[in-house]
Parts: sequence; C-alpha cells; structure tokens
Amino acid sequence: MKDDLDQEKTDESALHVMDGVDAPPALNPDLTFRSRVKIRRRPDAAALIDGVRRGDRVLLSQAITLIESERPEDRETAAQVLEAVMPEAGRSLRIGITGVPGVGKSTFIESFGLHLVEGGHKLAVLAVDPSSERSHGSILGDKTRMELLSRERNAYIRPTASGATLGGVARHTRETILLVEAAGFDRILIETVGVGQSEVIVHSMVDFFMLLSLPGAGDELQGMKRGIMEMADGIVITKADGDNIPRAKIAAADLNRALHLFPAREDGWTVPVRLTSAMTGEGLVELASLLEGYTEQMTEKGFFADRRRRQALFWMQQAIDEHLKQDFERTVAARREEIAGHVESGAINPFEAAERLIELYHEELRSRISNSDNA
Amino acid sequence: MKDDLDQEKTDESALHVMDGVDAPPALNPDLTFRSRVKIRRRPDAAALIDGVRRGDRVLLSQAITLIESERPEDRETAAQVLEAVMPEAGRSLRIGITGVPGVGKSTFIESFGLHLVEGGHKLAVLAVDPSSERSHGSILGDKTRMELLSRERNAYIRPTASGATLGGVARHTRETILLVEAAGFDRILIETVGVGQSEVIVHSMVDFFMLLSLPGAGDELQGMKRGIMEMADGIVITKADGDNIPRAKIAAADLNRALHLFPAREDGWTVPVRLTSAMTGEGLVELASLLEGYTEQMTEKGFFADRRRRQALFWMQQAIDEHLKQDFERTVAARREEIAGHVESGAINPFEAAERLIELYHEELRSRISNSDNA
Repeated sequence: MKDDLDQEKTDESALHVMDGVDAPPALNPDLTFRSRVKIRRRPDAAALIDGVRRGDRVLLSQAITLIESERPEDRETAAQVLEAVMPEAGRSLRIGITGVPGVGKSTFIESFGLHLVEGGHKLAVLAVDPSSERSHGSILGDKTRMELLSRERNAYIRPTASGATLGGVARHTRETILLVEAAGFDRILIETVGVGQSEVIVHSMVDFFMLLSLPGAGDELQGMKRGIMEMADGIVITKADGDNIPRAKIAAADLNRALHLFPAREDGWTVPVRLTSAMTGEGLVELASLLEGYTEQMTEKGFFADRRRRQALFWMQQAIDEHLKQDFERTVAARREEIAGHVESGAINPFEAAERLIELYHEELRSRISNSDNA
Repeated sequence: MKDDLDQEKTDESALHVMDGVDAPPALNPDLTFRSRVKIRRRPDAAALIDGVRRGDRVLLSQAITLIESERPEDRETAAQVLEAVMPEAGRSLRIGITGVPGVGKSTFIESFGLHLVEGGHKLAVLAVDPSSERSHGSILGDKTRMELLSRERNAYIRPTASGATLGGVARHTRETILLVEAAGFDRILIETVGVGQSEVIVHSMVDFFMLLSLPGAGDELQGMKRGIMEMADGIVITKADGDNIPRAKIAAADLNRALHLFPAREDGWTVPVRLTSAMTGEGLVELASLLEGYTEQMTEKGFFADRRRRQALFWMQQAIDEHLKQDFERTVAARREEIAGHVESGAINPFEAAERLIELYHEELRSRISNSDNA
C-alpha cells in the first residue's frame, strides 16, 4: 500500500502500468484533523478539468481515481469534472475485447495496440473485472504484461475500474471512457475477463465488441459462455501461426457456420471471423482496416450514433433500476429471507409473496419519511 | 360479447374450445345497483375451491377468469382460492412449446396431446400471447383448431391468458398452471407464438421447453429469435414426412451441430433433436418417453425441484421489479422525457441523469406520503 502512495510520479518512467494514485491512508485524515485543517490530497475540479483537457496523464489518472471514489464530496467534484469535459468526449472508437482465459488477450492487446499507436492513434486500454480486487488478481495488474505498450507515449493503460457492485464498475468504466476521450485518446480497448455479467457491461458501452477465440474446433467453443457469440461484432482467432494454422482455419469455418444460424442484423453488418497472430503480426493490419470500415459504414447509416444513444439510455435505466432495487432490498431485508423461504417451499405463490414484500416496503418508506419529517 | 356471456354451458358440448366465462357486462353492476343489492356473478371462494379440487371444468374456468380480473375484490377472492389449492398444485409436467409461425404448433399440440391423453394423462393446453386480445387473433381462439383434442374429456384447452402488461400475462399464466394442476391435470402444454418476450416468460415457468422447427436447413433457422435455441430443452422437427424426410434429417444435423457449440449444461442434460410428423404419427411415442426419461433423470438428481424453486424466486423478483419500475415511471413521467433527451444528445451523462430522476422521485414520494398523512 505504501508503494502505491509514492507512485504518483512513476508515469514519467515508461516501465510501469499506472495504478490509481490515491490509495486511502490508513487513518482517516478528516477524522484526525477535523476542524483544524482540511487535508486535500487531490487537485480541485478546475485543475483536473484543465489537466484532462491537456492530456496530462497524472491529472487524468487522478480524475479517474476521483470518479472511482464513493465519498460524497468526491462524487460532487467528479460530477463537475465530467460535466465540464462532456463536450470533448465521444470522439473515439470504443472497442470491447473478451475471450476465455488462455486465449491470449493481453498479448493480442499489446500487439494490436502497438499497431494502432504506430498508425498514429492515441490508445487507452481499460479493463472491467468486477471479481478482482485492485492489486491482487487484477487482469491488468501484472506489470510485466504489455511491457512494450506501456512504454509508448501514446498509450495509456489503466487497471480494472473498482467498484463493489456491478453497477459501480459499469459507472466507473463508462465515466473513465469519457475522461480518456476528453484527454484526446481516440481508440479505446476495454478488456474483460468475462466473469459473470462483465461481458454484458462491456458490450453495452462499446462501439465494436470483439470476441477472441483459440484455434481449435467445437471443443473450444464449448467453453464459451451462452449468448456471447451473439453479442460479438467480430470474432478474432488468435495464435494463428505455425502448426496452428490448419486448426485456426477449421475454427473459422466452424464459427462462420454457427454465425450463419443467427438472424441477420438490423444494422446490416455481417459479423466477420478473422485469423491473427501476435507472433507473426498476421491479420493485424486487416483487423485495423476492418474497424475503420465498420465505423465508416455504421456512421454513414446512422447506426453508430444510434447505438451510443441506446447505450446511454440503457445505462440511465440501469442506474435507476439498481438504485430502486438496492433501496428495496435494504428496506425489506429483515423479512425477505423468510418470505422467500415460503416461496421456495411452495407454501405461497411468488406473486402473493411479492405483494407482501411490497406492502412491507411501503410501510417502511412511510415511517422513514415521517420520521425524517419529524426530525 | 353477448355470445360470450351465454357460453358458460358450452363445455357440455365437446365441439368448443372454452373461452373465459365472465366477459364483464357493458354496465358496471356495482355502480348501478350500489347499496341496493350486491350482484355476484360468480360462485364464492369456497365453491371455486371445491370445484377446482373436484376437477369441475366450469368452476375451473371461472376460477381462471377470476384470476385474470384486475378488480381488487376479485384479487382478494383469487388469492384465497390460490392459497387453498396450493397444496394440490405442482404435480404435473409443465411443457413449453414455441416455434416460428407456420411450424405447425397447433397441429403438433393436437396430435401430441391426443397421444398423451390416450396414454392416460389429463392434459391442459394453455397459451401465452401478450400481443393478442381475447377473441380476435388469440392463438387458441380459432375454434376449428384442435378439434379432436377439444372433444376429449381429459383435455382442457384455455385460450391466451389476458393481461395488459407482460407481468400480468406471466402472473395469470403461472397461477392458471397452479389451478389446472389442482384440478388434476398432470400434463400441461403451454404454447407461445414467440412475440417479444413471451418465450422468456414461458421458459421461466416450465419444466421442459420445446422448440419446434421446420424441416429445412440454415435458412429456416435464420428466422429464429436470438437466444431461443439456448433456452430449449429439446428441439422437435415437425412435418417430417414424405418428401420432407431428407430435409428434416439435414435440419436435424444442422441443429445438432449448432447445439454442440453451446457449453455443457449444469444439469447434465443433452438437448435432443427429434423428428416428428403429425400426419404419420412418427416420433410421438418416442417424444413422450423422452419426456418421461427427462423427468425421471432430473427428479433423481434434484434438478427438477431446483428449477421450480429458482423459477418461483425469479417470478417473485420479477413482480417486485415490475412494481418498483412502474411506480417510478408513473411518478417521474412528467420530467423523464426531457432528461432522457439530454442523455441522448450527450449533454449529460446517463448516471448523472439517473441521479436527477431519483432525486425527483424521492421528492414526489415524500409529498405523496405527507399528503396522504394529512388527508
């Protein structure tokens, strides 16, 4: 933990993936020094806004950390920063990347990312992994990974957004996207390990969702999560080199056959399957131009903006639903388990049970509100 | 409408599919005769409970109609009836049936249903079609369909459960299942046209979800809704007779290949693809024994009860979520569109928008509650 506190300046060294900068101190400074001196460890909103706009990496990292904070005063500053940079946000291609463990996501991201940077793009790499805690097990936590990419001036790598809830992670990631866009990054790769609902989260915030797959036939696909193939805008077979080539081609044929079973997409896009190799560089140029072609085609027909609009409304709705649900669950917690037990045993029917819980919720709300009115 | 009012006794004729029995009168009798005489068009809870238990079809139909009513006094009686018959419910195999229009669902249900009845089962056929209104366009509304089955003493056919909302339809259907089970029906076929979310609804209330498919290769599958194949516990190719047989076999191979791409199921069940023909009777015996085998295997390993428990909790949660959502939407309706517009235009970020709407909701709740306290 102490190491982290001193890392604020390590972005000057090209050898490190940046961690968040504000691991909280062991003692709560507000508590210790209350009413004597207000300790502010971070620049204020104006400095952050200016820093993000200039593409200052230290200030960008601090702004992201601010966004991840759950402290009410931080939330307020974060809202100011976000509102100020919104006009500069949005001008990027957001690319989600998923695949089973072992598919070589980091290696792919490094080689494809380097290719994008060499092509003149500014690249940000984010990660969504709700299951990991910062610094142990985080998918981008291993600093020996993506070493070449992390040395690039025009690449910015940020480990997993933190958050206790799925909604928290989603919010942090979505807001981080806005910040890195405002900082001038025009290509964003968002990696997910595909634990639980993380693919759905990433899929719902990207313009192009890429599924990585190993060379190998049906057997490998068996490990794929249900529904994942249907979310993909493109499938990339990794490690298509040397002895793997024939198997990679069979896998591509299998995947194409499976994709053929899905109904045609509304936006007219045909999901492509491509072979790549991080080792030989095979397929990376084609993949980059595929993405350009996709963006052009979707923008022309209005589907690009459409998808983003739908995603924004989706996240608004998600945030509302999550709030309502959490408030309900907290409020009825004491009785919920008992009533759910009766439903499980078949003693009462689920709709009756729901009505009882809702009634209870209304009673609690009423007493909560009249208590606060009397206070 | 007048015709419907007089149909109460037509179940004595074997030629008709029974409609609901209590289409409401054109005038509200409670309003007209208020404080003079209370008109009750229906038997009371005790009579309904007794009737359902005895398997009396008129009273069963009346109980189902009661369940579909949204009038508060009916809801109360319905809750009493359901609570009383719960102990007798549950002892059936609930089978969901879906497939694209033209696949021959009615013909399949009639021939398979007759086979089940001949095998000594008591069969109830229900339907979920949220898009249809009673008596026009209802999928079981056409009385010339399932004519043979509707003549059977041991078959009970009930048209689409009505309900303005998806949740309403779900609730009515789920509760109808409990009633027909309590009335002694031990095989329940629940047909859905597969409009919108209706498959998800049906899938979430059955023990076995059957997807009907036409003989024909990939082209036909293209019309299949996304995700539907993954929900199936079994796939049945219809019309596998005469010249269709070779194409049916190709379709089966295609489907098997596609199924092979899905990960193995937790319950160990391998989704089968079977050929049937309503015309020749091909495959119906095998299908019935497949269902027996499935039930036995799932019961033995505890997955049968597990699935029902999970479904019950799912519906409890659904009912709660729907209530919360509706209450929220109603309450913030006046400002919602404006704020959503800002999200769509990118002026504010979706999480910020959600917070504003939630704040508004709390204010409205507070004033709603203090108004009712002052009243």
